[in-house]
Amino acid sequence: MNSRLEQRLEQFAKGDRNALARLITLVENRAPESSAIIERIYPMTGQAHVIGITGPPGAGKSTLVNRLIAKYRGLGKKVAVLAIDPSSPFSGGAVLGDRVRMTDHYKDPSVYIRSLSSRGSHGGLSRAAREIVKLLDAFGHDVVIIETVGVGQTELSIMDLADTTVVVTVPEGGDSVQIMKAGLNEIADVFVVNKADREGADRIKAELELNVHLRPTGAGWRPPVVMTQAAADVGVDALVAAIGKHRDHLSQHRDAAREAERRRREFVEILTAELDERAARALKNGRAPEVMNQVATGGINPYSAMLRLLDDPMALNELLSHETDSAD
Amino acid sequence: MNSRLEQRLEQFAKGDRNALARLITLVENRAPESSAIIERIYPMTGQAHVIGITGPPGAGKSTLVNRLIAKYRGLGKKVAVLAIDPSSPFSGGAVLGDRVRMTDHYKDPSVYIRSLSSRGSHGGLSRAAREIVKLLDAFGHDVVIIETVGVGQTELSIMDLADTTVVVTVPEGGDSVQIMKAGLNEIADVFVVNKADREGADRIKAELELNVHLRPTGAGWRPPVVMTQAAADVGVDALVAAIGKHRDHLSQHRDAAREAERRRREFVEILTAELDERAARALKNGRAPEVMNQVATGGINPYSAMLRLLDDPMALNELLSHETDSAD
Repeated sequence: MNSRLEQRLEQFAKGDRNALARLITLVENRAPESSAIIERIYPMTGQAHVIGITGPPGAGKSTLVNRLIAKYRGLGKKVAVLAIDPSSPFSGGAVLGDRVRMTDHYKDPSVYIRSLSSRGSHGGLSRAAREIVKLLDAFGHDVVIIETVGVGQTELSIMDLADTTVVVTVPEGGDSVQIMKAGLNEIADVFVVNKADREGADRIKAELELNVHLRPTGAGWRPPVVMTQAAADVGVDALVAAIGKHRDHLSQHRDAAREAERRRREFVEILTAELDERAARALKNGRAPEVMNQVATGGINPYSAMLRLLDDPMALNELLSHETDSAD
Repeated sequence: MNSRLEQRLEQFAKGDRNALARLITLVENRAPESSAIIERIYPMTGQAHVIGITGPPGAGKSTLVNRLIAKYRGLGKKVAVLAIDPSSPFSGGAVLGDRVRMTDHYKDPSVYIRSLSSRGSHGGLSRAAREIVKLLDAFGHDVVIIETVGVGQTELSIMDLADTTVVVTVPEGGDSVQIMKAGLNEIADVFVVNKADREGADRIKAELELNVHLRPTGAGWRPPVVMTQAAADVGVDALVAAIGKHRDHLSQHRDAAREAERRRREFVEILTAELDERAARALKNGRAPEVMNQVATGGINPYSAMLRLLDDPMALNELLSHETDSAD
């Protein structure tokens, strides 16, 4: 680890927001130092309550997040938001609009807001999100909100990072079916029916409650359905209360076996992700040139090349060895 | 490789459909032999035209696929279909319904249809899909159709396996916007407006054509927009013609540099996936017990554990060494 990075980590520990921003950027870009950074700040993590907010586009998630920030600030809490933007460049406009509304809080030094673009990152996005949440937690935020559009597997796996997952929906026709199709009902700890003044709100509430009754109770928690009108600040206090109740439930029902399993799973995820990144980086940097060139010209089939490489301990260690430095 | 597997590979090479089914199951379940299987059949691949069919739920993709099977059978071609099912158990009903309609072709020995569940597979799904396509190709199918619901990153990455990607939409309001939001417009080689007798079909066709004109031309190919009514067998011949035209375009515009790049990318993908699977398997089988137990009890943070493991060449080779046998 170079001295500049050491310095950044010291500034980070002192609460320097610029240092936080730079470390997030390194992790977002999957710099080779990412793992070393997270290893260092890891002992400072574990204090934040991580809240995931997900649901279909247009459900009013950003407005709701904006309200939640204000509520938690009112309770004296430091709040961070990580907004995972949809991948398509074409939806950039709307997303930008949402972000702009959040500028209410940009001047508040106890609120930190960051967007993470999902464009082109594939598997890397989950890992970047995980590590950015660790950084936001270690920095001393009491609440870390992750906001995603709940559609793909990646978004679902990001919600896995949350202690409490809030699934937001609206009373439009067929919406509870969409929620179920996307698998969102299975991950919800709290349901929100936003824009609850619209027609059909009671019906979707009833559908969600029925659904909750049909699913197996995970450690005795039944997800409540909270009606909100985020734009008018209606029902948001009830949502904060429901989230708090879920947090209390978690701390009262600590399950050592489940926690051990969660740690094991996290370990496998970060280890395999690190293997991926090291191998991809080495191949990109030309550190496995002969076999790579043979594959590229079609001289050897990629599966033969892979098995040959993996059966050669020296080649394997060379491929996966750590790179010392990168631009910062 | 055990003798039973050797036997299966011989039967596969002789055109035994049961052997094909068993090998697909091994690959689908990510058996340790998966890479060795694909290495063996790889020289037999490269003949099939791989067609990806994607689009939002309800666009009529399965009906269209059913029609395409009949058309290609009429041309004397052997056809395989790999249908990637949405992950949620709640949508099982509808999907089953779609599959059932495909039974028209189940008795035809020149048609092979297989579903692949995306539930819980996360990163493994892309790799399984890639290798099943290789098996279907090596088995001698002239046309391999991959059908997905175009929503998440995983589904987009699966479409990367196709030579020709067909994006199916319907004339419902706002649908071309949904297509763009999902990033589907960027991967389409052919657009289909299905249910083209409905109101708004001409409008969405015009929108898609405008969009095609705005995007950069990849090697001179402009995606055509084909109007179909799959249920009534209207426009499907035109779609077959458009797909054929794209295939001709590809073979007339072979680009050695692009092919080399594609092979390199494939190599990195299968290598990193293999590293993932070997590490995950070893950890599951308790082949890294001390460090894993330390992580599980919280005695060491997972990043420290990972870096310690990766910096130890002996431990690393042990972790990534190949397992010899598994149940078949």
